[in-house]
Amino acid sequence: MQLLKDRIRKDGKVKEGNVLKVDSFLNHQMDIKLFEEIGKEFKRRFAGEEINKILTIEASGIGIACVVAQSFDVPGVFAKKTKTKNIAGDVYTSKVESYTHGRVYDIIVSKEFLGKGDRVLLIDDFLANGKALEGLADLVKMSGAELVGAGVVIEKGFQVGGDVIRSKGIHLESLAIVDSMDEKTGTIVFRDEH
Amino acid sequence: MQLLKDRIRKDGKVKEGNVLKVDSFLNHQMDIKLFEEIGKEFKRRFAGEEINKILTIEASGIGIACVVAQSFDVPGVFAKKTKTKNIAGDVYTSKVESYTHGRVYDIIVSKEFLGKGDRVLLIDDFLANGKALEGLADLVKMSGAELVGAGVVIEKGFQVGGDVIRSKGIHLESLAIVDSMDEKTGTIVFRDEH
Repeated sequence: MQLLKDRIRKDGKVKEGNVLKVDSFLNHQMDIKLFEEIGKEFKRRFAGEEINKILTIEASGIGIACVVAQSFDVPGVFAKKTKTKNIAGDVYTSKVESYTHGRVYDIIVSKEFLGKGDRVLLIDDFLANGKALEGLADLVKMSGAELVGAGVVIEKGFQVGGDVIRSKGIHLESLAIVDSMDEKTGTIVFRDEH
Repeated sequence: MQLLKDRIRKDGKVKEGNVLKVDSFLNHQMDIKLFEEIGKEFKRRFAGEEINKILTIEASGIGIACVVAQSFDVPGVFAKKTKTKNIAGDVYTSKVESYTHGRVYDIIVSKEFLGKGDRVLLIDDFLANGKALEGLADLVKMSGAELVGAGVVIEKGFQVGGDVIRSKGIHLESLAIVDSMDEKTGTIVFRDEH
């Protein structure tokens, strides 16, 4: 998605440790006009697929998922992160290892909002090691719903997440795949521009 | 807002301890069509006010804030909750006491995204004791931005938050004010229906 790549080049900041800061438009301040274009692009990429629910994970996925849900004219659901050990029986739960925060947390979704007959598209802002999407896909499987695919805004192509998700046969669409970044020069190389 | 009150009566669940569960449409599963109507209603209630930024707090405020931001045609920003003690100098920080979780956490917003010249509308899903809105108002004040007002979807009128916020002279608009609830009968009384 050229508009997105241009924006990443213009406003993204490459930091030490392969960190790409896009918090001026994606995951702290949110450019809703850009989100609308992102929503349209996912709708185009999953055209012809029957989708009745968008599933994301708190917190930074929620805003994007809402605007994507508008494009598909369906409700959004966000999985909650929790450290509570004793989970009531009315939720599906999975574990996610956070690359950014270096810890494991439980994610939950109420059984009321995911189940047999649902056709689900996962949405998230970033794909790095794939743990968040794997956890969400777990929840979908447990619930008996159908996983239609996953859409991420930025895939870090130099980390394993994209391969992990694709190797499971999940239809993954990433709007920008960063294959390399250089914190010294600020250079960002996208996958189809090699 | 009648559409919202009708929805709360239809799908809200009154639980022990003055808990109003609206997670089927507001803060777990999200009815984006309803969010669009909420956005239009806030736009109507703050008509004539110059607003260039929507500020909310993670996680459940983010979806609503995004759709409200569409109505105002401005960017949204969400304050992050953090337990990190050593905050870098490039953020504004305040403290919020959580009624639901019974603990205090720091909220932060990057100095890049809030400052002099900004005219800010706060948005959140619930108003109970007012601590979250107070924390957000703090961040706005620290930044030198102008606080135009605050919009909440559901105000618990039997808790102190509404009085606290209004007594500070903040223009507060609540789309539904619950004055009392009965967990035994499931009855919900809204403020203008006494």
